[in-house]
Amino acid sequence: MKERGLLIVLSGPSGVGKGTVRKEIFSQTDTKFEYSISVTTRKPREGEVDGIDYFFRTREEFEEMIENKKLLEWAEFVGNYYGTPVDYVEKTLSEGKDVFLEIEVQGAIQVREIFPEGLFIFLAPPSLGELKNRIVTRGTETDDVIANRMKAAKAEIELMDAYDYVVENDTVLHACERIKSIVTAEHCRRERVSPRYKKMLEVE
Amino acid sequence: MKERGLLIVLSGPSGVGKGTVRKEIFSQTDTKFEYSISVTTRKPREGEVDGIDYFFRTREEFEEMIENKKLLEWAEFVGNYYGTPVDYVEKTLSEGKDVFLEIEVQGAIQVREIFPEGLFIFLAPPSLGELKNRIVTRGTETDDVIANRMKAAKAEIELMDAYDYVVENDTVLHACERIKSIVTAEHCRRERVSPRYKKMLEVE
Repeated sequence: MKERGLLIVLSGPSGVGKGTVRKEIFSQTDTKFEYSISVTTRKPREGEVDGIDYFFRTREEFEEMIENKKLLEWAEFVGNYYGTPVDYVEKTLSEGKDVFLEIEVQGAIQVREIFPEGLFIFLAPPSLGELKNRIVTRGTETDDVIANRMKAAKAEIELMDAYDYVVENDTVLHACERIKSIVTAEHCRRERVSPRYKKMLEVE
Repeated sequence: MKERGLLIVLSGPSGVGKGTVRKEIFSQTDTKFEYSISVTTRKPREGEVDGIDYFFRTREEFEEMIENKKLLEWAEFVGNYYGTPVDYVEKTLSEGKDVFLEIEVQGAIQVREIFPEGLFIFLAPPSLGELKNRIVTRGTETDDVIANRMKAAKAEIELMDAYDYVVENDTVLHACERIKSIVTAEHCRRERVSPRYKKMLEVE
């Protein structure tokens, strides 16, 4: 029996660059994650292949999947459904492969409910690193502007609390490197490794 | 105020290659850990410098350090004392630097008592990965030999339980890479990162 793979969930505020980071990770030849293919009701674009780029489904089929709890998470954007098929994720994990999801914050919350043991990584905007500077810009802003920025930053930071790791997207390559390090480290966690050794010692 | 550094403790069964892995890590130019300098009562060898290779002390001075709880851990090998000075470790951590210790298993247990928040990494012999093969070698061994090997392997594996991570020393470079990944990942843990952001938002 193969050891179950890890579910890696990359999420973060919209516009933070999740898609760019994901593409870079999968363009690197040493990446060993499986990218989770989404289901969508939008029409295939030229060159897109069913089962590779997306699973293309009708609205009826998609709604049936929602009904039958066949989606790990789903959402509707500009009139189209997008979701993560639970069967595909389950099958890939049970083959001992790590599955990588890149999804919106709302989706990540849904996934956490079903896979609490997943690896949840929050991609943080680089600007968060200089919060104070950004918020209080040398007295040239009104108190209202400052208060609003403060509130927005606080809301972003509070989102982090549901995650296991925070990676600042300072540069795409640096973010990818840290995400891969996190996965490598998680595979070395004693709780994961030691049962494997102990199992080896069991008498047949 | 600087964020406190991480205490990284590399340990494992004797003969596993801890020293070799440590030397490789510190020969790599991108390593950002501080190597913890040990105190010893053995005489300096040619070229060894006090405060760089070791802190060289007399037996009396060393015993006084034991007495005054100035050692994080210590042991006696072939007539000489070796130990880790707590002041040096504390000072370096408080400067925001990661401190790297490479010590024996007994020492690691002592350190865990004082620094439960440390990062404890167990270096496992590569042969553990093929335990079954090693122990039951195609029927050419007596039952006694097999039973003894089984016992020894079990004892090694039980040592792991006090550690956070297990890194198999399959190749020195691979082991180094995984150790560095573990440290990178730990720096991204949300519990570590999010208070930093939250602190930034506090009003002066």
